[in-house]
Amino acid sequence: MARTERGLDRLVNFSDATVAIAITILILPLVDLAGDIGDQHFGEFFAANVGSFVAFVVTFAVIGRFWVIHHRVFELVRDYSPGLVWANMLWLASIVFLPFAANAVSTRESVDGSFDAAYIGTMIVTTTAMLIIDLTLRREPALLVDGAVGAIDPSRSISVLVALLVAGLLAFLVPAIGMLWVLLLFAAPLVARALRALVPSIHRA
Amino acid sequence: MARTERGLDRLVNFSDATVAIAITILILPLVDLAGDIGDQHFGEFFAANVGSFVAFVVTFAVIGRFWVIHHRVFELVRDYSPGLVWANMLWLASIVFLPFAANAVSTRESVDGSFDAAYIGTMIVTTTAMLIIDLTLRREPALLVDGAVGAIDPSRSISVLVALLVAGLLAFLVPAIGMLWVLLLFAAPLVARALRALVPSIHRA
Amino acid sequence: MARTERGLDRLVNFSDATVAIAITILILPLVDLAGDIGDQHFGEFFAANVGSFVAFVVTFAVIGRFWVIHHRVFELVRDYSPGLVWANMLWLASIVFLPFAANAVSTRESVDGSFDAAYIGTMIVTTTAMLIIDLTLRREPALLVDGAVGAIDPSRSISVLVALLVAGLLAFLVPAIGMLWVLLLFAAPLVARALRALVPSIHRA
Amino acid sequence: MARTERGLDRLVNFSDATVAIAITILILPLVDLAGDIGDQHFGEFFAANVGSFVAFVVTFAVIGRFWVIHHRVFELVRDYSPGLVWANMLWLASIVFLPFAANAVSTRESVDGSFDAAYIGTMIVTTTAMLIIDLTLRREPALLVDGAVGAIDPSRSISVLVALLVAGLLAFLVPAIGMLWVLLLFAAPLVARALRALVPSIHRA
Repeated sequence: MARTERGLDRLVNFSDATVAIAITILILPLVDLAGDIGDQHFGEFFAANVGSFVAFVVTFAVIGRFWVIHHRVFELVRDYSPGLVWANMLWLASIVFLPFAANAVSTRESVDGSFDAAYIGTMIVTTTAMLIIDLTLRREPALLVDGAVGAIDPSRSISVLVALLVAGLLAFLVPAIGMLWVLLLFAAPLVARALRALVPSIHRA
Repeated sequence: MARTERGLDRLVNFSDATVAIAITILILPLVDLAGDIGDQHFGEFFAANVGSFVAFVVTFAVIGRFWVIHHRVFELVRDYSPGLVWANMLWLASIVFLPFAANAVSTRESVDGSFDAAYIGTMIVTTTAMLIIDLTLRREPALLVDGAVGAIDPSRSISVLVALLVAGLLAFLVPAIGMLWVLLLFAAPLVARALRALVPSIHRA
Repeated sequence: MARTERGLDRLVNFSDATVAIAITILILPLVDLAGDIGDQHFGEFFAANVGSFVAFVVTFAVIGRFWVIHHRVFELVRDYSPGLVWANMLWLASIVFLPFAANAVSTRESVDGSFDAAYIGTMIVTTTAMLIIDLTLRREPALLVDGAVGAIDPSRSISVLVALLVAGLLAFLVPAIGMLWVLLLFAAPLVARALRALVPSIHRA
Repeated sequence: MARTERGLDRLVNFSDATVAIAITILILPLVDLAGDIGDQHFGEFFAANVGSFVAFVVTFAVIGRFWVIHHRVFELVRDYSPGLVWANMLWLASIVFLPFAANAVSTRESVDGSFDAAYIGTMIVTTTAMLIIDLTLRREPALLVDGAVGAIDPSRSISVLVALLVAGLLAFLVPAIGMLWVLLLFAAPLVARALRALVPSIHRA
């Protein structure tokens, strides 16, 4: 099967376009809500829909963060394989699911945290897909630029998974904190550092 | 008429962007439904809208699969012609139609399978367009990289068409199986292998 | 002001992405309609919404056609100028407006052809913007690859304008023909040939 | 951390795709309104929704203008850093927010200018993010092509900020002028020239 550099560029461009659309349609629920403003002032409208504003900002940051991770990993890639393509497709599907999860969390009136769990579960799928990508690249080092195998570090994805499980637990135990648990995603590098200190073999695996 | 490598890149990038948008707007019906969650828990919401979730996952996989086929064929292309551009435009139109077909299948209350037929019919258009692309490339081998003519294999598209016709028949005979017939798309490589064994001349045509 | 080849690539990629999105969101009105299918069969649904299906197919072809023209012109471009960027922005704005015009034509219940006029007027803006691009390139031949000035042919855009004005007249005189006047767009090459035969100086201007 | 030219291209392409989507979904409120045309003629429809048409045209021009500024700055960039990536992400978030702000301004019935303030506030965030990008590039000149440091001119962003603050003041004092204050954005180059004359040290800072 022919594999050219343009083929890899297409995979990357297709991923970037998909992420760009997912991150942009986050605004659509607010665009719809804007149609029903009536004679509210901005302050009233903001107060009535603060959950939607928070969901937009937080999920924009989450997708941005996932994209930065994807970007960093693919800096080391020079070729692709069917396994990589489909692991990437799973990663994309979970990113595309986030605008739904965000809108669900911001509009649900129940307070049992089941939609928070769905949101966090989506992020766990994203991160698991990235872990599969990491492992695929370690198993097929020919896909990487020279000397890059050591830079593919599954502990990063594992630490994000740990942070997300903690977030899920927190969302369950303290539902009142709302979407703030998601900020734990940005604490993942700290978890990664701790993990690497505790289990140095992960990095060298 | 001037034809540059950037011209081919544009054709490919335009196609990728269009597919990326089509695959992403699959989530919009769920985003809309999320606006009416009210006080449902995630479990209740999922049970009430399971068809929409299945349509999202299945159609994401279908578009992903079609994109992978497109990607594989264009790995062999180095130039374009008006015929290729318009066959590709037909291919894109059918991809863009899938989010409608998916939402129609997931929300229709009738059980006569006519929307399943429309969905499968759309996939038949996609595959026919790919067959036209294959045949265009075989007729104009100057569009291909050196030595690639043999790798353009119309039997692949023909086997997908056979699989889809079987799927259409199944959807008609056993409407209760829902969208599962679509998985036959992923069985197409098996059909292709059988076809090539039975009619070896297709491959060498 | 620095101008690199990547700068031109960005202009082209940005245009392609915008056109790709405009051509894809043509399906959104049908996706919305799919949410209200109820227990209709596909045949009933199609008959009740035939205008929306026609608008999708026709406008997809129209945007595809405009993109092909844009693609052909930019095959000859190697640099950009502020004038080119803003003429291109006007071209993009009219393309982005077409999904509105298409949905308006397909859902309006009045039969006075004013929305057809708005649709055709949008296409006239698209074509005028392309004419401005043509003229900009002829005025600044340094933006073109060597020897390409002769290939920039304003008579093409002028012939499209003539075809569109005829279409507008037809839509006004024979409103019953619906969107079929739009097919005149595809007759523009014939008009171009006639124009070039009649007014050879246009081509050599 | 590996940083390749493709990595920078991805950052730029991702930004372009996001802006392309934001500029295109500006039409969605009008597409939705088209669904309720009923038996109105175009003239009646236009008169009833003139605010939405103005919001589309003005915001298209605004996003186009911001994109041109982004384009001009990144012509000088040859590498990226985490700081640049996240300043760019903030820039993108504010661009993505504009379709909401535009729809809010065009549909709100209150006349107190609070939504105009939100719209202008969004543009202030966009411009502040661009100022952060400028300052990042001046602080890390290795990210720029040779000899380009002098061409990175924070006074441009500062003059836009000044123009926007004047616009905000005008919108507050003369709410009746509607969205026309936004045109001040296009007057920013004049402000920039004045600023550079008054405070030459900004340019050489």
